[in-house]
Amino acid sequence: MRFHELVEARRSVREYTDEPLDDETLTELFDRVKYTPTGYNLQPQEFLVLREDDRQALLRECAYNQEQVTDAAAAVVVLGNLDPAAHADRVFDDWLDKDYVPNEEVRDGLASNVEGWREQPAEENRVWTVRNSSLAAMTLIYAAWEMGIASCPMEGFDAEAVRDEFDIDDGYEPVMIVTLGYAEAEASSPSKPAKFRRPPAENVHEEVFVPHAE
Amino acid sequence: MRFHELVEARRSVREYTDEPLDDETLTELFDRVKYTPTGYNLQPQEFLVLREDDRQALLRECAYNQEQVTDAAAAVVVLGNLDPAAHADRVFDDWLDKDYVPNEEVRDGLASNVEGWREQPAEENRVWTVRNSSLAAMTLIYAAWEMGIASCPMEGFDAEAVRDEFDIDDGYEPVMIVTLGYAEAEASSPSKPAKFRRPPAENVHEEVFVPHAE
Repeated sequence: MRFHELVEARRSVREYTDEPLDDETLTELFDRVKYTPTGYNLQPQEFLVLREDDRQALLRECAYNQEQVTDAAAAVVVLGNLDPAAHADRVFDDWLDKDYVPNEEVRDGLASNVEGWREQPAEENRVWTVRNSSLAAMTLIYAAWEMGIASCPMEGFDAEAVRDEFDIDDGYEPVMIVTLGYAEAEASSPSKPAKFRRPPAENVHEEVFVPHAE
Repeated sequence: MRFHELVEARRSVREYTDEPLDDETLTELFDRVKYTPTGYNLQPQEFLVLREDDRQALLRECAYNQEQVTDAAAAVVVLGNLDPAAHADRVFDDWLDKDYVPNEEVRDGLASNVEGWREQPAEENRVWTVRNSSLAAMTLIYAAWEMGIASCPMEGFDAEAVRDEFDIDDGYEPVMIVTLGYAEAEASSPSKPAKFRRPPAENVHEEVFVPHAE
């Protein structure tokens, strides 16, 4: 599907058929999601994919009992690594190999710069990983839709409960839940009209930022 | 362009031709970006679009003198409104109009819930707006690429300097810069090989989260 058609047609879908998402489909999906750009290509995103009933039930308890978590074929917890330098060595070795940096000195400078971010206030690294992992969540939603898989991004959940129930240590931030499945109704012709979107005339500012008065 | 082709072909591009981005093109672009999903459809994202040389030069100073800011046809500062309830009334009125909620009582409950988020610690609202605005930034990058417009997402800038230079008050978070323009080289066949991506076998976890040892 062409992207401009996809972005306009996509809806958040909470009602799914019983059709499962098989391994092959998930593999294809995440093979597309992996191309998401991230700052410095540091790729902090991780995906915890829950298809088993009991695991989904556990997540639903952490998500204020929202039904789509257990109705979905898969519920994906998008996590962000809070260590910016977790993959820095591999990333910058790759840059050196492919001539994105001219020499080892520049490569080492980049790596040590990113390692320095570890000393930032925790809030900055949280914002950093949420920003980058959200890019991956957006890609997941679009890639799924193109494959005929509907989704619902969810930010209403208790992150601490998710950490506890799924043994996610303090090194990772639960960023978003994305439920996935085949839409109950024909997803491309939903029964309800599309929700309102703020018009670009309101939130696109030319040269000077003048917030729109509500 | 089909999305799975787009996501794989897309590169971050820092070298642009002198061809400008005209008003019509930008209008079409942001008309696509507006469909981005956000939590509760609250749409905190704002876009400050700089095409004038002197404005881009000012932004470049805030972005550690990175050349692509002034080489680009447009440099877009993606901002996030830090007030979750800024558009809540319009959003939930729309839900009521379109039968997404059954009655006024439910509509008012949602609006007052979101208004309650204003009392959260500032860090939580910062994470909230970064998460949602990043979804819009990702859409911008994909929508642009489909239109033949290359981009470079940038997180390396001094957010406080951006605030000061562009009169952005404390109610908004500078989330990301996205430079836009027509790629100097043929964007769909870049001269350098694609950068490494972490394989899904490493960051997609089935049922249980077991971080990959680096």
